[in-house]
Amino acid sequence: MKRIVLLRHGESLWNKENRFTGWTDVDLTEKGTEEAAQAGNLMKSEGLNFDKAYTSCLKRAVKTLDTVLDHMDQDWIPVTKSWRLNEKHYGFLQGLNKKETALKYGDAQVQIWRRSYDVAPAPVAEDDPRNPRLDPRYSKVPVQDLPLTESLKDTEARTMPYWNCEILPSLAECDTILVVAHGNSLRSIIKNLKNISDDEIADLNLPTATPWVFEFDDAMTYLSDHLIGDSEDIKRKMASVADQGKS
Amino acid sequence: MKRIVLLRHGESLWNKENRFTGWTDVDLTEKGTEEAAQAGNLMKSEGLNFDKAYTSCLKRAVKTLDTVLDHMDQDWIPVTKSWRLNEKHYGFLQGLNKKETALKYGDAQVQIWRRSYDVAPAPVAEDDPRNPRLDPRYSKVPVQDLPLTESLKDTEARTMPYWNCEILPSLAECDTILVVAHGNSLRSIIKNLKNISDDEIADLNLPTATPWVFEFDDAMTYLSDHLIGDSEDIKRKMASVADQGKS
Repeated sequence: MKRIVLLRHGESLWNKENRFTGWTDVDLTEKGTEEAAQAGNLMKSEGLNFDKAYTSCLKRAVKTLDTVLDHMDQDWIPVTKSWRLNEKHYGFLQGLNKKETALKYGDAQVQIWRRSYDVAPAPVAEDDPRNPRLDPRYSKVPVQDLPLTESLKDTEARTMPYWNCEILPSLAECDTILVVAHGNSLRSIIKNLKNISDDEIADLNLPTATPWVFEFDDAMTYLSDHLIGDSEDIKRKMASVADQGKS
Repeated sequence: MKRIVLLRHGESLWNKENRFTGWTDVDLTEKGTEEAAQAGNLMKSEGLNFDKAYTSCLKRAVKTLDTVLDHMDQDWIPVTKSWRLNEKHYGFLQGLNKKETALKYGDAQVQIWRRSYDVAPAPVAEDDPRNPRLDPRYSKVPVQDLPLTESLKDTEARTMPYWNCEILPSLAECDTILVVAHGNSLRSIIKNLKNISDDEIADLNLPTATPWVFEFDDAMTYLSDHLIGDSEDIKRKMASVADQGKS
């Protein structure tokens, strides 16, 4: 049996400040680094040995991955970073406080921006510093692929080609792969893997730094999945994520 | 002008304990992490922007690189890890204290093991846990390529194909590359770049975590090189490395 473990990064500075982050490259908090270390220890105790790992171009994911691998004594694993695993681009919302935004626009509107499948916030302007086209790290990405805002559907449209063309096929010559990414890029992948409807995906809240193991047969067909960790702790983390956008 | 920056990892636990390390996967000390952070800050202040980075399969190099990139806000840079950049394999000496070894075998013999070009320490046995053939991280390397001991000449024989076939050609589509590796794997590369003789290479002591910038023209021909940092600090670090094998 083959496995791909999906892991959302630990708490970031803007998670803590309850701000929309998206493609903003904010760091982990101390708690976030500690969460990553715990995830590494947990996966080590489960006996997971990774053949390779994927992550995004954002440091909260890269540093979560580095910390996890270090706690597993697997620093030597090949790592590939891709913009296609980045968080959903939150358009004009990036940088705004979620609670303040809810007070201004209402809980319902914020819930739509956060959890609707196909509604994107207003885009950033071409000359806005939040435009990824101005960031040298994306200079090799075709400009038409770089978003100014995204719905979950838009995020899915860039993550799934990478999943289908790169990550899943690499299981052919691997047994166990780790993917460290973000709440929404991972939600878009899990939506496809578990065949979750456009409506039902709104209720999926990914807990931070909690390993989610997906099992596949040798033909790379999805078989089953389970979260690793204390079930009460996982429930608490999921509820905390769900509550973030309320006034 | 194109640049490749060579960087030796920061102080490791066995640097501190003055033990022969080789392919043993020991961690950085706190001082080593601090050295890596300083190297990152120094390169940031020099305005270096890396297109990609290479490192070894050993955590003291991987973690030095991670720390450097984080302090430069360049966590997103593609990183490739290769066993060909690993430290020289020190054979039966791996794990032994350098000073105790000098007391037992004499300073001259230890200097030969540390700095001669073509004399290797006695190899480890096939069933010795220090045999890389028993380490899963090297399971995809042809077994005849994995050393049981090495002279600097042997180290050079595995680093230079990687330098010539992978690192240097990648300059064709890059401006600036970072290579974080080890005292002897980097000495073997610098020997070739600067055309240093088999005898004279004995006197080259690489300071820890001190960026060494090599400049190339557009045809990837070596032009010049310089170390970055305070010159007194660099001299002190070089003398400290040279003194390690004395009784």
